Amino acid sequence: MKSLDNVTPTLPVSLPQAGGGVYRTGSSPARPDAAAVPTHWYNIAADLPEPIPPHLNPATGDPVTAAELENLFPAALAAQELSTDRFILIPEPIRDVYKTWRVTPLLRASRLERALNTRARIYLKYEGASPVGSHKPNSAVAQAYYNQKAGVDKLTTETGAGQWGSALAFAGAMFDLNVEVWQVRASYESKPYRRYLMELYGGRVHSSPSSQTATGRAILSDDPNTPGSLGMAVSEAVEVALAEPRVRYALGSVLNHVVLHQSVIGQEAIAQLREQGEATADVVIGCAGGGSNLAGLSFPFLREVLTADASTRVIAAEPSACPSLTRGEYRYDHGDFSGLTPLMKMHTLGNDFVPDSIHAGGLRYHGMAPALSHVVNLGLVEPVAIHQDAAFHAGVLLARTEGLVPAPESTHALAAAFAYLDRTSREETVVIGLSGHGQLDLPAYHSILSGCSR
Amino acid sequence: MKSLDNVTPTLPVSLPQAGGGVYRTGSSPARPDAAAVPTHWYNIAADLPEPIPPHLNPATGDPVTAAELENLFPAALAAQELSTDRFILIPEPIRDVYKTWRVTPLLRASRLERALNTRARIYLKYEGASPVGSHKPNSAVAQAYYNQKAGVDKLTTETGAGQWGSALAFAGAMFDLNVEVWQVRASYESKPYRRYLMELYGGRVHSSPSSQTATGRAILSDDPNTPGSLGMAVSEAVEVALAEPRVRYALGSVLNHVVLHQSVIGQEAIAQLREQGEATADVVIGCAGGGSNLAGLSFPFLREVLTADASTRVIAAEPSACPSLTRGEYRYDHGDFSGLTPLMKMHTLGNDFVPDSIHAGGLRYHGMAPALSHVVNLGLVEPVAIHQDAAFHAGVLLARTEGLVPAPESTHALAAAFAYLDRTSREETVVIGLSGHGQLDLPAYHSILSGCSR
Repeated sequence: MKSLDNVTPTLPVSLPQAGGGVYRTGSSPARPDAAAVPTHWYNIAADLPEPIPPHLNPATGDPVTAAELENLFPAALAAQELSTDRFILIPEPIRDVYKTWRVTPLLRASRLERALNTRARIYLKYEGASPVGSHKPNSAVAQAYYNQKAGVDKLTTETGAGQWGSALAFAGAMFDLNVEVWQVRASYESKPYRRYLMELYGGRVHSSPSSQTATGRAILSDDPNTPGSLGMAVSEAVEVALAEPRVRYALGSVLNHVVLHQSVIGQEAIAQLREQGEATADVVIGCAGGGSNLAGLSFPFLREVLTADASTRVIAAEPSACPSLTRGEYRYDHGDFSGLTPLMKMHTLGNDFVPDSIHAGGLRYHGMAPALSHVVNLGLVEPVAIHQDAAFHAGVLLARTEGLVPAPESTHALAAAFAYLDRTSREETVVIGLSGHGQLDLPAYHSILSGCSR
Repeated sequence: MKSLDNVTPTLPVSLPQAGGGVYRTGSSPARPDAAAVPTHWYNIAADLPEPIPPHLNPATGDPVTAAELENLFPAALAAQELSTDRFILIPEPIRDVYKTWRVTPLLRASRLERALNTRARIYLKYEGASPVGSHKPNSAVAQAYYNQKAGVDKLTTETGAGQWGSALAFAGAMFDLNVEVWQVRASYESKPYRRYLMELYGGRVHSSPSSQTATGRAILSDDPNTPGSLGMAVSEAVEVALAEPRVRYALGSVLNHVVLHQSVIGQEAIAQLREQGEATADVVIGCAGGGSNLAGLSFPFLREVLTADASTRVIAAEPSACPSLTRGEYRYDHGDFSGLTPLMKMHTLGNDFVPDSIHAGGLRYHGMAPALSHVVNLGLVEPVAIHQDAAFHAGVLLARTEGLVPAPESTHALAAAFAYLDRTSREETVVIGLSGHGQLDLPAYHSILSGCSR
């Protein structure tokens, strides 16, 4: 990877900030309505007993400032990244797009309960109902809105399996922004459907490494047959964002503002549970790759643990092939392979860790969101590592009982839930987060069912 | 096709009727609730000024009787096929499965309205939210329920693109029935995702023609390289259902009871419109292949035309490659290629018509549901033929404004709606039925966008 040395990790040119710097907070949103999209995002930073360790500028070792972040993100997102306000108003244009698919279903899984022979009441919070089939648009739409307000013309990003790239392409179409995506070559070639989806939304997709960037050309010159990696794709997308005016880079997980945007999931789930006559959840379980899905689902529940007398347990299901929470170190590390991002305090396997090629591409990340890492460190979230085979078998059971086809990522939450339920006979309330549907991952199910998963 | 001569079109062995013969009607269901799944199916036969012409026994030329139909279907479905009751109670086990994805969204398409520069208020009734991504499970779940109650062990069916086959496989999983599907070879080989979906639900899928049946073996012996056809696949599925005890054949469109089951779509849409402050729809537009989607959406609106003072216009969008309503004859014809089904009065291109291979596989049917054909003949529904290219371009516009990716079939309704809106400047209420999502049809969008649609 020394060919990446010629990418200068300086900050991009400054951009007009036409209203993009404004965000409104509010400490008391209306009581949540189970039939309505939340009016505010919830920020757990307001309720933590100890603050989330700050991101550090790798050059100085000092905490990253708002001014530095404003060179990377529109002012509103930079402010959200550092905010400790409890509630942040969701601008109406974002809420309006959310309404295309939100409120997402909270389904009582009675047929699954019978198949598991459990006394627990199982609820599925299903994010697969979004236009691109995952929770990713919750942040993509917000990021596209603030960037467009700030005068940005184009967003660049990387994508592995294509979930984040298609979410950003969708969001770009909603706010008239160009979106350019570097998709890891192995996935670009073997999983064309999500690329077609990005293109349908008007996104431009490159196989990474590409000949569009100095980084890509150098890598290809060293190894024309490289399958690519997420680290290389990040570097290409960042290089373009740094080089061109009115172009910015967008991230799909890990950062505090991404986690913030996902908080609509958990807020809705709490209101929907109450409508079903449940006081709260005893257990909340979700999959964790970069952490935005589980944080979005669980942090509103943790608010009740931190500020009221709730005792909700939260379980983070990660893949045994990429076990940052269960086997990583909790320390400062870069978010990308080549060290262009700020240092973040997180559970990490090291930024040069290359996980096995599992089907759940969305969980193949070496680190974990600093906010989620922090609450794991505080003992508020319990991590568990799940083997891919157990995950898929859980997904098959869900399909054959409730009919939903979960994404490979989401099947990890199911397997963790089944393992938990196997050890308890209590009549309790369990919420399982399903981060997306798996209809574009059917070849993976086919591999598992036909016994050739490797 | 003379190799099909050895399939004896006699009626299958009789089956135990354990409760399957019972269905309950009710003339006054509770006032529809926009947030609740309908409690009854609506049967337009009760409100028509002239009855739907009966199906005929091809051997005698006489109307098919309930007793004859009971040899093909469970008694409840046979009774529904002939019923003129206005409302038929939906059994709770069916309604319980419906609740997994119903009530389906009715979305106000404001961004699309702005893109079209129309004064009309456009609403999208979106059936793509079902587990298999189309409206088909509305009938598949009902058929699986009644067959299981009647002691059937296995259902056989054919499928072209795979929408109906995957709906029946899903429904079979919900009611513990085996499902065996003959999928047209061309589609089996080129569109593996829906086959994987059927298998995920536990369905067994054969490439048709197959070596499992005498029909298939004879066809393969004549022409080992045949791409197959829907007609051949029907014959294989019927042959197996006729030969084995406790096995029945299931149909995904055309018949009166299938149309009946789909009426949940339109009932929901009316209640949802009222919740939005709309008295009714001025125009309702849907795609029509076999007719069950458009009938399900429009018949509850036509009830208000027939029995109240509503003046809703209904437009049926069919593909110009298979224009049964706009260019077919209205006469008695068989529902299948080899003449095994009863004769039905319908708009037909002839049961030996082989349409071009368009992407909207669900619209490639030579005939049209007798109930829909009848209301077209009465002038209550206006048909229009849409070219595939116009349809896909409409689909791309929808994706880039509202974010939803419509099925190729559904794009025909969009194109018909856009053509209608182009000719009017009235402030009116237009409901467009989107029968399914197109996430498994992304290669078709890719072909269109890259200019190689043929």
